[in-house]
Amino acid sequence: MLLTGASGFVGAPTIAALLGAGHEVHAVTRRAGPPVTGVSWHEADLLETSGLIAEIEPELLVHLAWFAEHGSFWTAPENVRWVEASLALLRAFADAGGRRAVIAGTCAEYAWTHDVYAEGDECRPATLYGSAKHGLHVIAEAFAKRSGISLAWGRIFFMYGPGEAPGRLVPSLARSLLAGEPARTSAGRKLRDLLHVDDVGSAFAALTGSTVEGAVNIGSGEGIALEDLASAIAHHAGAPGRLELGSLPAREGDPPSLVADVERLSSEVGWRPSIALDRGLAETVAWWRERTAEPAEPLPRPR
Amino acid sequence: MLLTGASGFVGAPTIAALLGAGHEVHAVTRRAGPPVTGVSWHEADLLETSGLIAEIEPELLVHLAWFAEHGSFWTAPENVRWVEASLALLRAFADAGGRRAVIAGTCAEYAWTHDVYAEGDECRPATLYGSAKHGLHVIAEAFAKRSGISLAWGRIFFMYGPGEAPGRLVPSLARSLLAGEPARTSAGRKLRDLLHVDDVGSAFAALTGSTVEGAVNIGSGEGIALEDLASAIAHHAGAPGRLELGSLPAREGDPPSLVADVERLSSEVGWRPSIALDRGLAETVAWWRERTAEPAEPLPRPR
Repeated sequence: MLLTGASGFVGAPTIAALLGAGHEVHAVTRRAGPPVTGVSWHEADLLETSGLIAEIEPELLVHLAWFAEHGSFWTAPENVRWVEASLALLRAFADAGGRRAVIAGTCAEYAWTHDVYAEGDECRPATLYGSAKHGLHVIAEAFAKRSGISLAWGRIFFMYGPGEAPGRLVPSLARSLLAGEPARTSAGRKLRDLLHVDDVGSAFAALTGSTVEGAVNIGSGEGIALEDLASAIAHHAGAPGRLELGSLPAREGDPPSLVADVERLSSEVGWRPSIALDRGLAETVAWWRERTAEPAEPLPRPR
Repeated sequence: MLLTGASGFVGAPTIAALLGAGHEVHAVTRRAGPPVTGVSWHEADLLETSGLIAEIEPELLVHLAWFAEHGSFWTAPENVRWVEASLALLRAFADAGGRRAVIAGTCAEYAWTHDVYAEGDECRPATLYGSAKHGLHVIAEAFAKRSGISLAWGRIFFMYGPGEAPGRLVPSLARSLLAGEPARTSAGRKLRDLLHVDDVGSAFAALTGSTVEGAVNIGSGEGIALEDLASAIAHHAGAPGRLELGSLPAREGDPPSLVADVERLSSEVGWRPSIALDRGLAETVAWWRERTAEPAEPLPRPR
């Protein structure tokens, strides 16, 4: 099988989960990872991947690669380039006799009008990123049907875990707090569905091994208020007093709730999360603690 | 301005309408047309058009080119390739400072569940062709918004007129009847919205010259039953007796009615058709009469 985005945030745990399920993985990435039994690394731009597919003739494709630069990916024109590359990839996969493809989608495809989102809900993306993914899904699904390819589309909600880009919410809070700085955040009562990235990788491997087709939400099914998330991180960082909730303006257009209906994932794919949020956050903060140059101030003892 | 698909069925009358509106047209096509004042022909594959755009720096883009081979275009994998090429084109247009783009969409984007379709109706395409166009629209609209490009999307319903591909409904009926052969057809009570191709070109020129954004249906607003269409063609061919209505099976999945709500086109763009269906059909049959090798049998006099 062939995996794109293999060295990315989701790619790394997905490889582990795919190996655990007995797959031999051809891992495509811009920079190869460490040698692992069962993994063949291919350093290639996604634009060169079509040639690789013709050579490898994989029966399975897991396509996670995307432009994901923190802060800019929501609106970056690169999203369009990645649609083009993804379609070329899928055509090459069909030409090479591919049988099943699993592609990463996003909760940003939905019309952000309610609280809990099921796969059949209306898609009306508010962002270029969501539009690019949704448009790709519409085209890929019709093309797969026509080509006899079984296609699943995993709509990722929110992720966290070791190795996340430092500028994103969980790492930025953890790093500030661990460095002894105040952590300013807009986090309020907005609900988000967070899944540990190892669970996301595990869910993708389960989806790949199933015969489920169409969109499948990849989430925990539970919403946590962002201020509760921030408080939990501050607690694990031992610095609850340095959290400045609501001190930054909320991002315009951010919906009040983005929580996954996980009925398809649990009943049809038969997969459930194994890492509880509080434990995952504790581990993530510990991971950042090891990597934070400035040691956190000693926790003041309660008086 | 730059026009793609310039030598196609819609492209030819669109050039005429654009020239009439005072535009200087850079016409991109696989085979250049005759010299015309105001038209610069560029023989280029759509894949090479991005380079051309960087050179010409057009402020306006009308993108009509698509894979349109009769019979196969509904399901051909080439649809995916054309999405890729169209996205590359739009990126190049944005990079070159383009300001307004008009792209050809289709009534095949809609969920074929009712009779008359307005632009806000749900899109759930039943075909790869419709999915490719709809997916492209979703992505192009978000990209245009992000890039400061004004984008209109002209959803073409059904067209007829001189120069249509011989295998399509109107030409095939006209040619058979003019050649003295029986004309077998599945045509029944299904309603379709037909617009003369010169009117389609005129509507695209009007849309281009307007500031209207988003999807706009390009149709007459009137439905004609396919059996009435066939009868009108047989009448103009002077061969009503050779029409064998309902002698072929209907194509699976064909919806009972595909008629455009033309409120946006008439009120916002301010455009109305100028060629009545019966006159257009008479002219189209006459055009085919001049090109049919076998003369029609003399019309039997009524007894």
